Amino acid sequence: MTETKKFGFKLITTDGMARRGEINTPHGVVHTPAFMPVGTQATVKAMFTDHVRETGADVVLGNTYHLMLRPTAERVDRLGGLHKFMNWPHTILTDSGGFQVMSLAQLRKLDEDGVRFQSHIDGSKHHLTPERSVEIQGLLGSDIQMQLDECIKLPSPREEVQRAMELSLRWAERSRTQFDKMRGPGKGQGLYGIVQGGDVPELRIRSAEELAKLPMEGYSVGGLAVGEPQEVMLKMLDITTPVMPVDKPRYLMGVGTPDDLLESVKRGIDQFDCVMPTRAGRHGLAYTRFGKVNLKNARHQDDPRPLDEESACPATSTYSRAYLHHLFRAGEALSGMLLTWNNIAYYQTLMQGMRDAIEESRFEEFYAKTKEDWARGDIAAL
Amino acid sequence: MTETKKFGFKLITTDGMARRGEINTPHGVVHTPAFMPVGTQATVKAMFTDHVRETGADVVLGNTYHLMLRPTAERVDRLGGLHKFMNWPHTILTDSGGFQVMSLAQLRKLDEDGVRFQSHIDGSKHHLTPERSVEIQGLLGSDIQMQLDECIKLPSPREEVQRAMELSLRWAERSRTQFDKMRGPGKGQGLYGIVQGGDVPELRIRSAEELAKLPMEGYSVGGLAVGEPQEVMLKMLDITTPVMPVDKPRYLMGVGTPDDLLESVKRGIDQFDCVMPTRAGRHGLAYTRFGKVNLKNARHQDDPRPLDEESACPATSTYSRAYLHHLFRAGEALSGMLLTWNNIAYYQTLMQGMRDAIEESRFEEFYAKTKEDWARGDIAAL
Repeated sequence: MTETKKFGFKLITTDGMARRGEINTPHGVVHTPAFMPVGTQATVKAMFTDHVRETGADVVLGNTYHLMLRPTAERVDRLGGLHKFMNWPHTILTDSGGFQVMSLAQLRKLDEDGVRFQSHIDGSKHHLTPERSVEIQGLLGSDIQMQLDECIKLPSPREEVQRAMELSLRWAERSRTQFDKMRGPGKGQGLYGIVQGGDVPELRIRSAEELAKLPMEGYSVGGLAVGEPQEVMLKMLDITTPVMPVDKPRYLMGVGTPDDLLESVKRGIDQFDCVMPTRAGRHGLAYTRFGKVNLKNARHQDDPRPLDEESACPATSTYSRAYLHHLFRAGEALSGMLLTWNNIAYYQTLMQGMRDAIEESRFEEFYAKTKEDWARGDIAAL
Repeated sequence: MTETKKFGFKLITTDGMARRGEINTPHGVVHTPAFMPVGTQATVKAMFTDHVRETGADVVLGNTYHLMLRPTAERVDRLGGLHKFMNWPHTILTDSGGFQVMSLAQLRKLDEDGVRFQSHIDGSKHHLTPERSVEIQGLLGSDIQMQLDECIKLPSPREEVQRAMELSLRWAERSRTQFDKMRGPGKGQGLYGIVQGGDVPELRIRSAEELAKLPMEGYSVGGLAVGEPQEVMLKMLDITTPVMPVDKPRYLMGVGTPDDLLESVKRGIDQFDCVMPTRAGRHGLAYTRFGKVNLKNARHQDDPRPLDEESACPATSTYSRAYLHHLFRAGEALSGMLLTWNNIAYYQTLMQGMRDAIEESRFEEFYAKTKEDWARGDIAAL
């Protein structure tokens, strides 16, 4: 059996541009379109992994930048890899570390070779190159690796967008070379290239086309949801996904709101990750079928209704809004635990709904009904 | 069926002074000796109630002081009572609020009638009397209520200890009168009186004897573990439990370390509560069969062993010490979630061990073996 047989993507069916597929990794099947909860520091914040799994998640994301600094990739490797370390036996995707270096690290300096920076934890000095990023992700035992790229904020001058995009392409090649050298026989992990090009259509298209020449297991769209309006992001998807390989998974990085997911699946995206559901949960915000509910608000203090009694998630169907409001006001950890669980469950329910709809060729109907429910809003009965 | 038939205590067997019993409440059976996890603000901090139950807990404690201020007893009542509010369908014991008023509230003023104070949350003014405390605990739906008492710090002058003890006796009578007036027919809840008397043997004995004349469903020992050495506490138990009714449960309030529990069961105590296992869990400390493990310590950073692979608790047997150390260092919520769970599970395992040992007339052996294991300590293999 060859390595590439182990990592695989099967496009099961399409409905318009929307795609229903399956990614096979050494740690299981990922049903796409898929939302990947973020487990930055080897934990999906405030959640037990069995609950993450029960919501329907097939894959979680680990952040290379955080893990390389603490507990370090070498330590995770000695302890048996990230799956064992965090008690998640299913698929893990890791990012390259580049995005967080640019947003969190101190005194960072980027050149052709890579990026030098100091840890935001202890000031220690590090040098992240495309090769080192692949090495770290290998030590973590990641099933799906990301190439190191340069992700810039929008808006930026066109020359700057082009420079970063071209650098990212050269880094994609170096990443691929290193990945092929390091990946053991029969390991079956995958490496994804990342399309850059900011908000410039020609650059996006060139990036996608050049990247497609490299034999990647998947292709990401990076550098979106970095400050631009949603319509700019969607326009970029409109022109990018048609030039991406049909037979490989497409991952839109760092996105997004439930509406972003719906709009992006409609445009042919297969994978997503975002801190939004977990972060919002810790701030008293619940995502539901009928839109966002701000549990901080005093209007919930006497409301005996659960967030959604029809939900299969215990956090969603068991506890009253009055109780969730009380927990948040009282500063109790259980507040973040329950709302994070609710939010991840809602995101997974949304993805399951999209997967079912695509299979049954009724994505447009699902899309309309979902928007209608969100617009209906969540009016308190009291 | 009369009310008193519903609340019942059955002394199953004894082994020396140690007692094995069962308390029947409207929400189930409490197997004694029992440890009651503390759920101050309608949540055992950082734990899901199903996990609390799975550790073997039959009863949790709610704090009247916190709940009367937020979300308020009237609101909990409107929402269906504390059991429903916090999703704990088993037995709930509530304290009277007195202890927290004295330790947390502002501008408190105590007289014969009760205690006036201002909320530590918003400065609002409140008046807690023996009658109002019973009323509040009734609104919460508590299965086991505590009388309002005055608990003073040790050491204190003898006159002061005597004054507080006598006031507590008068408040016990008023509480009983109110409780009998308010308790609906067939409700089956219980009210416990509280033995005070500080570290003065004669006062402890007088308090216990006078209290025994009131028809309480149970009797507590209060005012211990408030600054005195363990040997003073145990000496007070040595002279107090022999004058407490044999056919009623005995509850040592706010205690304690695993060693305190072992020593107190040996002296005839049936119930305990303490924030220690939950609080310690949030501070990186794990209780185990082989003593306390401080997960903050760097010596754990490469240790692949779980806290106790023989434990039935997933938090204890699944995750490596290296991972628990990492989570604590990284400030992750999962650290407190896992260690709290481990600690409550260890406390319950200890209680189950004592219950089994008493039933099988080998309490002394269990006592010796348990102390031996703690003394062995938990030496890292690395």
